[in-house]
Amino acid sequence: MTAALLEQYRERIRTELDRVVDFWLKYSHDKEHGGFFNCLGKDGKVYDELKYVWLQGRQVWMYSRLYRTVERFHRPEILDAAKSGAAFLQKFARVQASSGAGKCAFCLTRDGRAVKVQRTIFSECFYVMAMDELSRITQDKEMQADAESMMDRLIFWVQTDSSDLSRPQLPGDPPVNSMAVPMMLLCLVDQLTEGRTDVAEKYKDLSGWCVERILQHIQRDGKAILENVTLTGKELPGCQGRLQNPGHALEAGWFLLQYALKKEDVQLQKTAVDKFMEIPFHTGWDKQHGGLFYFLDVDGHCPTQLEWNMKLWWPHCEALIAYLMAYSHSRAPLLLDRFKLIYDYTFSHFSDEEHGEWFGYLSRQGEVVLDFKGGPFKGFFHVPRCLYMCEKHFAFHDQDVTKCKMFL
Amino acid sequence: MTAALLEQYRERIRTELDRVVDFWLKYSHDKEHGGFFNCLGKDGKVYDELKYVWLQGRQVWMYSRLYRTVERFHRPEILDAAKSGAAFLQKFARVQASSGAGKCAFCLTRDGRAVKVQRTIFSECFYVMAMDELSRITQDKEMQADAESMMDRLIFWVQTDSSDLSRPQLPGDPPVNSMAVPMMLLCLVDQLTEGRTDVAEKYKDLSGWCVERILQHIQRDGKAILENVTLTGKELPGCQGRLQNPGHALEAGWFLLQYALKKEDVQLQKTAVDKFMEIPFHTGWDKQHGGLFYFLDVDGHCPTQLEWNMKLWWPHCEALIAYLMAYSHSRAPLLLDRFKLIYDYTFSHFSDEEHGEWFGYLSRQGEVVLDFKGGPFKGFFHVPRCLYMCEKHFAFHDQDVTKCKMFL
Repeated sequence: MTAALLEQYRERIRTELDRVVDFWLKYSHDKEHGGFFNCLGKDGKVYDELKYVWLQGRQVWMYSRLYRTVERFHRPEILDAAKSGAAFLQKFARVQASSGAGKCAFCLTRDGRAVKVQRTIFSECFYVMAMDELSRITQDKEMQADAESMMDRLIFWVQTDSSDLSRPQLPGDPPVNSMAVPMMLLCLVDQLTEGRTDVAEKYKDLSGWCVERILQHIQRDGKAILENVTLTGKELPGCQGRLQNPGHALEAGWFLLQYALKKEDVQLQKTAVDKFMEIPFHTGWDKQHGGLFYFLDVDGHCPTQLEWNMKLWWPHCEALIAYLMAYSHSRAPLLLDRFKLIYDYTFSHFSDEEHGEWFGYLSRQGEVVLDFKGGPFKGFFHVPRCLYMCEKHFAFHDQDVTKCKMFL
Repeated sequence: MTAALLEQYRERIRTELDRVVDFWLKYSHDKEHGGFFNCLGKDGKVYDELKYVWLQGRQVWMYSRLYRTVERFHRPEILDAAKSGAAFLQKFARVQASSGAGKCAFCLTRDGRAVKVQRTIFSECFYVMAMDELSRITQDKEMQADAESMMDRLIFWVQTDSSDLSRPQLPGDPPVNSMAVPMMLLCLVDQLTEGRTDVAEKYKDLSGWCVERILQHIQRDGKAILENVTLTGKELPGCQGRLQNPGHALEAGWFLLQYALKKEDVQLQKTAVDKFMEIPFHTGWDKQHGGLFYFLDVDGHCPTQLEWNMKLWWPHCEALIAYLMAYSHSRAPLLLDRFKLIYDYTFSHFSDEEHGEWFGYLSRQGEVVLDFKGGPFKGFFHVPRCLYMCEKHFAFHDQDVTKCKMFL
């Protein structure tokens, strides 16, 4: 029965990935200026021409990864689209030195003029992901070097001197260990080191540093994952310190598990599942209406984020990857049960039968309240990455039963 | 019948203002460090100790205004609280010169250390309001001069050189006329010039400039009020250009009407009501569930703000002031009907019978989704200002029937 059910999931996921890829191929390409339109309505129509650098980079990465690793996506139009996006980014993403040396914009006009620069590292992170992945296909050494030099700049900002980010140092705002930073860097190390032992050696300390920083988010005697902690792993005061972001914790969970599987670190595999999957699942799942909350306060206060009780697509994507990865490597039935529950909610609420792709933003009760398919923070990334990763783990599940039950 | 109904409203509003004042007097005062706690749960308990400068300034202003102009609030504890807040602001609000000359922080720790600085003018605006209003009671000339010099700095930032705000000039982001700026400055001119002909003379050009900038937001052949336009009053491209914020438009409406009544400018009075009240009311009122939407797109696209369909307390406060002011000066029954509709929604949804004060954030369907009474953007301001202004207009309604029907 489990096998039949898994086959049914697998088929649906495969079909869904095809539809999602088709949607973005059809509607998002800017044939005049290069790069991608990000703001697509429910039917794919462009409702704003701004180009968000996070999303441009993610789309280049996703197209390239699909082209490189999934046979049915090894198609010239997909590679061409990735190249167009990368060329747009290389030409326009970097802002003038006066606004921060080597900083990438957050948002560009259709023709590539900077609209906004964030005082964070994430535009640069997705730039690195994009260039590294595409250069693996094209064997473009300059592009690979571009990715690595941006990576080194990132590490410098995070570990040595952040003044290029133009964040004022304020006496009431000491530096914080936000989950996003070590998570993102661990993801980049995974990207850059695939199949390259020399690069893996170069970033060995960094990945250890990332894991340590991620583990600092385990708080309250191991019973909570908090989004922001001090640099020494202590709880911060107030709302910032009490914030929980279940989707982020689950995403960190599968990043950690993936790392721990590679390292064959059984203890870390267990921590990834017990702490970074089970805790956010129990905390974040809405027992009344289903779905994962966006934000919660560990002491049960009301979060101050207006959208705290909304159900967003991406935490569900991350949860699906996390539990299928954990299940396919452990075969623990409980983890498959979690996957099923999240799968049922996700596919019945987010996927749009009519026009393809997924809605991104539901009310607590599960109604679509923002009906666009692409927006400033939703592009060709979480949905296809989730479907791609799930497809990959179904394949692992088929082949690798002997390697299972590693960590439970 | 109308008279009886108005009397009923009036009584409720008076009682409600007393309860709201009592709530903040009881729960928000920081007796150790001065100033006010802003983050108060539904029962008044402090859930975060951060102090938001907008809200500190607004609370000083509101206490001072009530003390100065409403007999039953002419109580020493209210004046003392205003003084404590002003002293806290004067001591701590300004950040070090390196982060922008004369800039005020957005947020401070409980003991006054800067946590965040915004690249806008609003912390400074509420600083000006606070100091000017309190100095009218205490006759503190230095405090009045402090308010005026901050005001002059603000005007310099807005009209001459904004580089102290540290906003990078980016080629894809030309300067924008956002409704908030001319609205806020018109409000400050009204504050500073009350009873002072010399100051009124000084800011005469500025108020004309503000009115002109506000009127530029009338777009689409007079059928829409848009939140952001170019500096020459043209529509901007994309989501930013199509954004409508009904609550903001209604607030601008009563600022304009108040100005036009003083100036006895009948045409501007009519514009204030027809364009800045009736248009946002028709656009913004949710015909299905009642209440005013937070954001809308003039072409009917889905806004990208996650909270677009939520019902927030402050647009309802501004709408009540706007329509009661318009009604009490015109006696047009339609305007009273609007007031009734908004009043019924507001008092049945936002006011908390159990603990006092109002909830701030409802779902589209009208359920409370964030249950705190004070938070980073909700303090002792919109609710008491609304109740105070309504009380004032009921009094005008009693006495001044001969001056009515000015603009209809």
